[in-house]
Amino acid sequence: MRICVIGCGAVGSLFAAHLARSGDHEVWAYDVWKEHTQAMRERGLRLSGAADFTVQVNATSDPGEIPRCDYGIVATKAIHTKSAIAQAARAFDDQSAVCSVQNGVGNEELIAEHVKYVIRGTTFPAGHPIAPGHIGYDIKGDTWMGPFEPTATPMAKVEELAAALTAAGMNTIALADARGAQWTKLIFNASTNPVGALTLLHHGAATRFPPTGQLFEDLIAEGEAVARALNIALHGDPRALVQKGASAPGKHKASMLQDVLARRPTEVDFMNGAIVRWGEKTGVPTPLNRALWALIKGLEHGWRDP
Amino acid sequence: MRICVIGCGAVGSLFAAHLARSGDHEVWAYDVWKEHTQAMRERGLRLSGAADFTVQVNATSDPGEIPRCDYGIVATKAIHTKSAIAQAARAFDDQSAVCSVQNGVGNEELIAEHVKYVIRGTTFPAGHPIAPGHIGYDIKGDTWMGPFEPTATPMAKVEELAAALTAAGMNTIALADARGAQWTKLIFNASTNPVGALTLLHHGAATRFPPTGQLFEDLIAEGEAVARALNIALHGDPRALVQKGASAPGKHKASMLQDVLARRPTEVDFMNGAIVRWGEKTGVPTPLNRALWALIKGLEHGWRDP
Repeated sequence: MRICVIGCGAVGSLFAAHLARSGDHEVWAYDVWKEHTQAMRERGLRLSGAADFTVQVNATSDPGEIPRCDYGIVATKAIHTKSAIAQAARAFDDQSAVCSVQNGVGNEELIAEHVKYVIRGTTFPAGHPIAPGHIGYDIKGDTWMGPFEPTATPMAKVEELAAALTAAGMNTIALADARGAQWTKLIFNASTNPVGALTLLHHGAATRFPPTGQLFEDLIAEGEAVARALNIALHGDPRALVQKGASAPGKHKASMLQDVLARRPTEVDFMNGAIVRWGEKTGVPTPLNRALWALIKGLEHGWRDP
Repeated sequence: MRICVIGCGAVGSLFAAHLARSGDHEVWAYDVWKEHTQAMRERGLRLSGAADFTVQVNATSDPGEIPRCDYGIVATKAIHTKSAIAQAARAFDDQSAVCSVQNGVGNEELIAEHVKYVIRGTTFPAGHPIAPGHIGYDIKGDTWMGPFEPTATPMAKVEELAAALTAAGMNTIALADARGAQWTKLIFNASTNPVGALTLLHHGAATRFPPTGQLFEDLIAEGEAVARALNIALHGDPRALVQKGASAPGKHKASMLQDVLARRPTEVDFMNGAIVRWGEKTGVPTPLNRALWALIKGLEHGWRDP
């Protein structure tokens, strides 16, 4: 199969590298980070950490170069989904399916504006860029995917992509309803990310400090209430993800804290903002998610020197 | 009369300077900031801005030098009330009365552990240190005071201190119940201060940006509910204070934002923390005040590199 990873930063590169290494597929990596795509073309894509290997991939920062693909995997930051899929959409036709493996909720809706079949995905592996063409593979983890309901994606397509990823060494579970896995990670992210970003605490410290640990709990409870109102059965307890992260070695900074320190726009609209919007639609109050959303938006607003 | 200002920083210096200039009183200024007390002793205390004058005051950083006083005015940051009054308490006897003009709620309780008669005060003038011995007088404003209920301070003492301040040029209103004025400022502070400190937005920007402006509203509504449960009639609308501040010229940073930027412990326990504690006592939910309290405490916690 021909598979394109759209947004080939840290997480996208983990997917591209494993799929390419399997030798079963033609893999394309598309990213606006030109130094990275050039390095991949010239020297291959290197992973180090939880796995160490270098592999050849087709890499480009010019969407016009991407041939027609059977599958797409979108791994940009959520704030870039809209522009990335608009640029890459011409690589997909009415037999292709495109899967989001991004943070938050709302990406599939944006992809479906351009693509016939969309797959709802959630992924747990994590990495970080070391240099152009070189990604640190920090944490192994599973990926969960299922049809994006409005596009009625055939389950066979979900299973084919999941099997390809699993065979390539990234364990992926195909589900008829992937909302539970996505909302479990959403609720986890919407508690730990803005609290880390506002307090500048690394994940373990924020979990162990009683005031912020309790705030995690209170934010999680709001998210769970919205999920219940949407008849979404969570895939485990978001609190288990909090504790797992807190007991990991090192001082891991939530991605939103990394964004804030670099003054990059955050994914808060797709995290706490999404919980607030779904809360409004279902009549569930979400005052804490709204407050955290407002504080992060205020922080971003300040970068424009109002 | 002999009057001692305890905590003679920006706001305390406004009181000390006006009382000394009136010529009617022996004024003592006590502060741990030694460069400031030394400069006042050597060159007098200078105000500039809303008023410009220099006046001689008795200033010391040694509490043993303070003689017996008729009145005390405590103007430290709330986090220093406990140690400041413990140090200065020997200047007061069972005829003296000590008034807090500090931010937040809970200072009078700490003063009453050392002093027989305590006065509950709230003040609106603002200033900032320019140099040792020299304070910028930024904003004129009234002061409100009344007996601290548990010490049953005679109203005559409240009126005597208020009259002295008014005669000295700092308009002061004596009230039988000063809780309304104090809670109005408390609710204003507990909305604008933590939001400014977490978003780094100056007061006008945070007021005008819709997400944070709405958060001010929501925090104010919680504080008002607690005040109602305590049968405290607010002294005007906290929203009017928000708007007044927002329409002032310049980019005023809330005092808690100034504390955060300087990595000084904030007054959040006496602001949002106090609203949460009184909410618990009266059965009024205060989830947003608790969340903002937790975030500020988390921010302070991070300075200890946990």
